[in-house]
Amino acid sequence: MTADVVALLREALGERVDTDPASLETARADKSGHAAPGHPLAVVHAASVADVQATLRIATATGTPVVTRGAGTGLAGGANAGAGEIALSVRGMDRILEVRPDDLLAVVEPGILNADLNAQLAEHGLWWAPDPASRAIATVGGNIATGAGGLLCAKYGVVRDAVLGVDLVLADGRLLHLGHRSVKGVTGLDLTALVIGSEGTLGVVVGATLKLRRLVPGEVRTLTATFPDVRAAAVASAAVTASGVQPAILELMDAASLAAVHALLGMDPPPAGAAQLTVQTDGPAADLEAEAIAEVLRGVGGTVAVAADAAEGERLLTIRRTMHPAMESMGTALIEDVSVPRSALPAMFDEIARVEREHGVVIPTVAHAGDGNLHPNFVFEGPEVPAVVWAAADDLFRSALRLGGTLTGEHGVGVLKSRWLADELGDDQWELQRQVTRVFDPLGILNPGKVFAPSQP
Amino acid sequence: MTADVVALLREALGERVDTDPASLETARADKSGHAAPGHPLAVVHAASVADVQATLRIATATGTPVVTRGAGTGLAGGANAGAGEIALSVRGMDRILEVRPDDLLAVVEPGILNADLNAQLAEHGLWWAPDPASRAIATVGGNIATGAGGLLCAKYGVVRDAVLGVDLVLADGRLLHLGHRSVKGVTGLDLTALVIGSEGTLGVVVGATLKLRRLVPGEVRTLTATFPDVRAAAVASAAVTASGVQPAILELMDAASLAAVHALLGMDPPPAGAAQLTVQTDGPAADLEAEAIAEVLRGVGGTVAVAADAAEGERLLTIRRTMHPAMESMGTALIEDVSVPRSALPAMFDEIARVEREHGVVIPTVAHAGDGNLHPNFVFEGPEVPAVVWAAADDLFRSALRLGGTLTGEHGVGVLKSRWLADELGDDQWELQRQVTRVFDPLGILNPGKVFAPSQP
Repeated sequence: MTADVVALLREALGERVDTDPASLETARADKSGHAAPGHPLAVVHAASVADVQATLRIATATGTPVVTRGAGTGLAGGANAGAGEIALSVRGMDRILEVRPDDLLAVVEPGILNADLNAQLAEHGLWWAPDPASRAIATVGGNIATGAGGLLCAKYGVVRDAVLGVDLVLADGRLLHLGHRSVKGVTGLDLTALVIGSEGTLGVVVGATLKLRRLVPGEVRTLTATFPDVRAAAVASAAVTASGVQPAILELMDAASLAAVHALLGMDPPPAGAAQLTVQTDGPAADLEAEAIAEVLRGVGGTVAVAADAAEGERLLTIRRTMHPAMESMGTALIEDVSVPRSALPAMFDEIARVEREHGVVIPTVAHAGDGNLHPNFVFEGPEVPAVVWAAADDLFRSALRLGGTLTGEHGVGVLKSRWLADELGDDQWELQRQVTRVFDPLGILNPGKVFAPSQP
Repeated sequence: MTADVVALLREALGERVDTDPASLETARADKSGHAAPGHPLAVVHAASVADVQATLRIATATGTPVVTRGAGTGLAGGANAGAGEIALSVRGMDRILEVRPDDLLAVVEPGILNADLNAQLAEHGLWWAPDPASRAIATVGGNIATGAGGLLCAKYGVVRDAVLGVDLVLADGRLLHLGHRSVKGVTGLDLTALVIGSEGTLGVVVGATLKLRRLVPGEVRTLTATFPDVRAAAVASAAVTASGVQPAILELMDAASLAAVHALLGMDPPPAGAAQLTVQTDGPAADLEAEAIAEVLRGVGGTVAVAADAAEGERLLTIRRTMHPAMESMGTALIEDVSVPRSALPAMFDEIARVEREHGVVIPTVAHAGDGNLHPNFVFEGPEVPAVVWAAADDLFRSALRLGGTLTGEHGVGVLKSRWLADELGDDQWELQRQVTRVFDPLGILNPGKVFAPSQP
C-alpha cells in the first residue's frame, strides 16, 4: 500500500515526489524541537495548484494522511510529517500574483517568505503588517495556518486582520475560493477566518488575498526602560496601555532573558533581577508619543534610555531579537506562548515565579507586553522534553486559563498543546470544532493527530 | 402540535411567551419592507441565558424552527419569523456586564442598542467602533449577526474586527463560550469569526466580549466636494484613497440621492446631475488631513466646501444621513448593499447607469466610498417588490460580482439575497457552508429558509 501511494504520486507528479532520506528527515520536524515518529512516505514539492490537487486526490483515493508544510519554522509541531504520511510542501509556490496599491491588496502564493513579500511590497510603498519574529524565514502560508502575530500586533493587528480571502484545496482535491477582494463583505459564513489558524486541518491554502497597509511615514523612535524586577516592568507596561498612547512595539524581557542575551552579545551583565521594556513609536507623532511614554515609565520607577537615532534604536531592539538565539545557546528550548488580558500581565508573571519555585525550573520569559502575549521558555538538555518541564508547563497553562487567558496567542496548538485544548474549549466546543473539520475533511486525512488529538506529547 | 409548542413554552417561560396579535405581526417583518408569510407561533421575550436555553430545548424537542430577533432593523429579512416558527427576542437582554478600560474590552448582552452602549462607554473614554447607520435603533447582537459595517469602517474596522468572543446557545440548548479575552488567541478554530455574520443560522448569541477603542481625541473636520456627475465623484474618491491620507468618513451621494435629500430638507436643488462627496477627518492630524484631502479633491475638479466648525460639519453630514428618510418619502425602498474593490467604484457606477437605462428604473445610490460599499436604492409603490426591480437588482448583483465584488457588504443575505448566494460562493462552497451550519444545528431549526435557502423572493 505504501509503495502504491508513492507510485501513484510519482505517476502523477514525476520528480516533484522526493523520497531522499535527508528530505524525509527534514519533513519530520519544525523549530519546536519536536519530531514526528517515523518518516513520511514522501515529500511532494508542489509547484502549482494542480500539483496540490493531484496530491490530495491520491491521498483521498488511498486514505493517506497529508501534512502541509511551508518553511518548517513552526513552534508547535503542527507541520511535522511522520510514518505513513505524505508531506506536502508548498514552499516552492512563492510567487506574488498581483499587487494593487489602489485597492491595498496583494494576491500571493503560500510559499513566499513574509520578509520577501514585504521587501517587494516596499517598492510600492506598502506592507503586510503581520510580523512574526520568524518573518525572515517563515512563509505567508504558514503565517495564515497558525494565525501568526508578532511584535507590531497591538497597533497593526494579527494575520486574522490582514487576510481578505484564501484559495483552499479540500481533502478531496476540489478548489474553493473563500472570501472577497472588497474591504467589506458578509456573503455567507466567514470561512476565510475559519481557515486562518486552522493549522492544516481544513484544507491546503494555495493562494491568499492579503489586506495591505501603506508604509508608515517618518522615523521610528525607540527607548528602553529598566526596572528592578519583572513585576515592576509588567505594571509599567500596563501603565503605558492605560495612558492611551499606542506604541508600535512594547516588549518585555525578564531578568533571566535579559542576562542570557547580554551574555551572548558580550555586553556587561544587567543589574541582578533587572527586567526591561523596549518601546518603539512610529508615524507622524512618533517623537511626542515616545516622550509621553518615557514620562509614564519614569513615573512608575523606570530608568529610561532613549535612542539618539534609528541605528541606536535598532541596536536596542536587537537585544530583544536575540532572545531565541540566547535560549538556543543554553540547550533545547521549548518556547511557550500563553496570552492573557493585558491587565493580568503582572499576575501572570507572579504565576510564572510560583511555577519556577514549585517545580524547581527556570523559565526565562519575554512578552509582547502591549498585547498580553508571553513566551515563557523552558530550556533543557537533549531532544526529549523532560517530565518536570511538562509538569511545569501544565501548571503554567492552567494559570493562564484561570487568569482569563488562552493556551496560545500566535504559535498554534500543533501536537505540543493538543492535550490541553479541551481544557480551554470545553468538551462540547472541542467536539463541535472537530466535527467542523470533518465537513472539510470527511476521511480525517488532513494533518491527523494535530490540534484535535488529545494525545500525550 | 402548534398548541403543544406554545403550551410547553408557557410552562417553561410563563409570561415571557407573547401571543398578542400585534406582537406576532411585528415579528414578521424588519426594515427591509419584506414580511414572512404567516405569523409566528409566539414571541418569546428572553430575559436571561436560561430563557434562551429553555426555548431552544423545547424547539429541539418539538422540531420547531426558531428565528432570533433583536430590534428588527435588518434590511434583508433575516430576522423575519413566519408560520410555524418561534420568534425569540433577545432585545430585553440589554445589560452591560463589564467594562474594562485597562483591557479595552466590554462584556455585554446582545439586546443593547449600539448607541446606548456607546453612550455608556463614552463615560469611560471608550467606544465600540462599528457604526451602522442604524446604530441608534439596532442592537449589538444584530450587528454581530449581520457582521455590520458603517461609515467609519475604512479607518476603524467592521464588527469582525471588534469582537473577541461570543457566548452562543446551540440549537439543542447547550451554551458555548467562544473566543477569548486576550488581544491575541489562536487556540483551535476561530468560531467567533464564524458566528459573526452567520445571521442566526449557527446559534443564539447571548453575550459578547467586545474589543474597544479609546475615544479619538480632538475635533473632527468635515468637508464636501461637489462634482458634475457621479463618475467624477467616484474617480475623486479613488484619488483620495490613492493619496494615502485616511479619512474617517468618505461618503458619496449620486445625483438622484442628493436631489431627493435636498427636496426633503427644503434646500435649494443641487445643480442637475451633480454628485457629492462628504469627508470627515479626525484625530490629532484632522486639520492637516482635511487640507490634504481638499487639495486632492480640487485637483480632480471638485468644488470644495469646508465646514467652519463641528456644528456646520454635522449639518453637512446630516445631508448624507437623510438618504433613507428621503427614499422612504418616495415609496417603498429596497436598499441594496453590494461592495466592490475600491478601484472598481467608477466602473460600478457605470454599471448602475447601464442597469437604469436597460431596465427603465431609477436607482438612487449612496456609497461608503472609502471602502467600496454601495447602497443602490430601488423605490416602488406598495409592499411587493415588482418583477422589473428584481430583474434590475439581479443585473446589478451580477455586475458587482464581475467586478470582483460581493453581494452584500454589511446587511447580510437574509431571505432577499439567498437566491444569488450560490452565484457568488459557487455550488461547492455553498454546500460546504450549509453542512457547517448542520454541525451546529443538526435538525435545521435555526432560521430555516434564510441565507442557504435558494428560494425565489
